[in-house]
Amino acid sequence: MRTIKLILEYDGAAYHGWQYQNNALSVQEVLSRAIYKLTGEDIMPEGAGRTDAGVHALGQVASFKTRSSIPAEKFTPALNTYLPEDVSVRSSESVADDFHARFSAKGKHYRYIILNTPQRSALWAKRAWHIREKLDEEAMTEAASYFIGTHNFEAFCAAGHHVKTFERTVTLSQWKREGDLLIFDTQGNGYLYNMVRIMVGTMVDIGKGRFAPDIIKKAIENRQRNSIGMTAPPSGLYLMEVFY
Amino acid sequence: MRTIKLILEYDGAAYHGWQYQNNALSVQEVLSRAIYKLTGEDIMPEGAGRTDAGVHALGQVASFKTRSSIPAEKFTPALNTYLPEDVSVRSSESVADDFHARFSAKGKHYRYIILNTPQRSALWAKRAWHIREKLDEEAMTEAASYFIGTHNFEAFCAAGHHVKTFERTVTLSQWKREGDLLIFDTQGNGYLYNMVRIMVGTMVDIGKGRFAPDIIKKAIENRQRNSIGMTAPPSGLYLMEVFY
Repeated sequence: MRTIKLILEYDGAAYHGWQYQNNALSVQEVLSRAIYKLTGEDIMPEGAGRTDAGVHALGQVASFKTRSSIPAEKFTPALNTYLPEDVSVRSSESVADDFHARFSAKGKHYRYIILNTPQRSALWAKRAWHIREKLDEEAMTEAASYFIGTHNFEAFCAAGHHVKTFERTVTLSQWKREGDLLIFDTQGNGYLYNMVRIMVGTMVDIGKGRFAPDIIKKAIENRQRNSIGMTAPPSGLYLMEVFY
Repeated sequence: MRTIKLILEYDGAAYHGWQYQNNALSVQEVLSRAIYKLTGEDIMPEGAGRTDAGVHALGQVASFKTRSSIPAEKFTPALNTYLPEDVSVRSSESVADDFHARFSAKGKHYRYIILNTPQRSALWAKRAWHIREKLDEEAMTEAASYFIGTHNFEAFCAAGHHVKTFERTVTLSQWKREGDLLIFDTQGNGYLYNMVRIMVGTMVDIGKGRFAPDIIKKAIENRQRNSIGMTAPPSGLYLMEVFY
């Protein structure tokens, strides 16, 4: 048995997220099917991040164990012939037996793209969050800075989600503008359920002047989900890279 | 009656081109329906370029006459509420009565995007032509230069297409590289049916070493469609701008 690590890209628009579901198509399922067609093995690959419906990836990582003798690097072109065109393998390699896409992950890089124009854009539909209003980028940049560090992020976790600890370390949290796009990049050792989307939703409310930037600091302290802003839509979110 | 000029953006993937067809969905039809919903008028808007199935636009121009009293600039947000999300209006204005999107056009800017990577990309599927092989960009740049000027482009027109004259003037024809993308930009006073896609297909054959760059010069002289390369797929083509 060998363990294979894949780096995956996908357009999440047509999928009900990464995670296998009985009654809806997931990226995990189409990958599992492609592996079956290639190797004849009925395998459910593990994913590093359980991206939600509509969320995209440029660097999702999946791992699985196989008895097949296919050279590790050949999984890339071979799986790409079996996968639908909105899912692709970027690279494949053989890794240590105890590698697990999710449990071995040491950190992640997420990007969130806002299209900040008066009119919506056909080519960015499903690939960005369209916001018409002018946003106060200075306030959003200040807000972003409060995420950096090791904090209890319970206020930034979707309600009803149980985890061992809400403590996470964020090492990168910044906005940049590229033309009509406002792009938020964040890296950290892990993210709670919906955490990036709640971070972005709250910063957009700050950019609209509904809250002061230091509401982030206060929410980290009071740990109350209802003290902050909305959850940004999934279409603007991209899982860029997983660190090991 | 006023004449309204629209600038349109669309993702052509789901459409059988610009032009209305009885048995397939076109961009012209969804725009006509949106105008009907907004004004109650049964109007078939004219388009500057008859983009093919799968071809995209960032700057298609459409024009139509209306009796409605809606202020010209309000057509943009109003039509955007009725159009499907893969078609959007970028701007709308009132123009002279004799303005016609197609007949008044003095020139066009087309872009063609090639994704030049060993593996295909999920997010670029349907938005670029994926070519695995390394291409000789120097040869393609030389080839592109031969298009500039006023020439008979019969060799670069899809067979069986009848026009008054095959003479067109190309003022811009150049390749640039942006990371994994090879981008071809061309501007001219008009393009024959499939002309940009045949230009690109031939230059790609040149980039693969199948032809020498000066086959472009020879094809312009001999006017034989079968003397040159393939027609590039529609997914990489974008109508960027129409000049008046």
